[in-house]
Amino acid sequence: MSGAKFITFEGPDGSGKTTVSVKVTERLIKEGYSVILTREPGGSAIAEQIRNVILDPENTAMDERTEALLYAASRRQHLVEKVLPALEQGVHVISDRFVDSSLAYQGCGRHIGIDPVMSINQFAIEGHMPDYTIFLDIDAETGLERIQKGRTYLDRLDQEKLSFHMDVWNGYREIIERYKDRMILIDASKSVEEVTEAAYLAVKQILDEA
Amino acid sequence: MSGAKFITFEGPDGSGKTTVSVKVTERLIKEGYSVILTREPGGSAIAEQIRNVILDPENTAMDERTEALLYAASRRQHLVEKVLPALEQGVHVISDRFVDSSLAYQGCGRHIGIDPVMSINQFAIEGHMPDYTIFLDIDAETGLERIQKGRTYLDRLDQEKLSFHMDVWNGYREIIERYKDRMILIDASKSVEEVTEAAYLAVKQILDEA
Repeated sequence: MSGAKFITFEGPDGSGKTTVSVKVTERLIKEGYSVILTREPGGSAIAEQIRNVILDPENTAMDERTEALLYAASRRQHLVEKVLPALEQGVHVISDRFVDSSLAYQGCGRHIGIDPVMSINQFAIEGHMPDYTIFLDIDAETGLERIQKGRTYLDRLDQEKLSFHMDVWNGYREIIERYKDRMILIDASKSVEEVTEAAYLAVKQILDEA
Repeated sequence: MSGAKFITFEGPDGSGKTTVSVKVTERLIKEGYSVILTREPGGSAIAEQIRNVILDPENTAMDERTEALLYAASRRQHLVEKVLPALEQGVHVISDRFVDSSLAYQGCGRHIGIDPVMSINQFAIEGHMPDYTIFLDIDAETGLERIQKGRTYLDRLDQEKLSFHMDVWNGYREIIERYKDRMILIDASKSVEEVTEAAYLAVKQILDEA
């Protein structure tokens, strides 16, 4: 393996993760860094097919453990087809979400537990954990406000989502504590420009050390 | 949970597993036993979609760990949609293949190892191991002969299959040893009628004890 770094962006819904990771990567590429931005399924035809099964609105009978196994399968395929080949060629990889998302969403949001979800993900990634994780940190209320922007009422489904959202948020707190050595927390309550600047500086420092 | 039993049929290719499990179940149903025969994906729409991804001939880039995770996902969904509801209603369940097949085929045939494949399957089945496993025992050569019947030559692919077949066969020996408490070995080198009779008597004894 080359000195290429594997960096993930994580954060609860409403943290601006996707917008910020795109802006950071664009800026680094413009400056000549050899870096790609990806997210599962990331152009892998097989990972894509797996995601289609997860996201098919017809599949209301899907068990939460089935879902967690499918996410792990999609992650595995994306890792071997896209992430590892890039790293082996010396290209830094930024991934919008990775293992931590499953720990938060399936482990805590779906109440399977962090350890069981970690165990199937360890099978999937075989030790290829991110070198660093840029965590876009936002308090639960602000995240919620951003998600709900434009909505006028909370129906029953939204109420369920609210509880799910809080469980995910609390899950992320536990994950940050558990993996603090690789976590870089960025205050995501600020403007997109400020968050992007902070995330850019953090990633740039990692790449310059590589 | 009622006293209903969960019984699996296992064995290498060429052992006659499917034919025998059908005949045994038909006979038991005719005699008034409350029993169903199933095999993954077993009529679960979601498990079916997952199997389609595994079996799609276009998916030559599929990693062996992705495959193992997908089998575990399909197994989970089949278990919660079909096996557990039947058992809860007091209906005995016979499954043509279950966890042991993944241990033999993915664990040993694909060289992932029995323990890692068991770990993701433990996540999938949450302790719902079969009460008994009817293992149709056949020596590697006889199994191979039955598989190859009608073929006139071994091409490169068949040579690969030969080595895969042997690894699966050896894997099953290890699995039998590991789980001997629930294993009932039936000599599958005999005629279909004799094997069916022996398997029938074994299953009948289990159900009569229930």
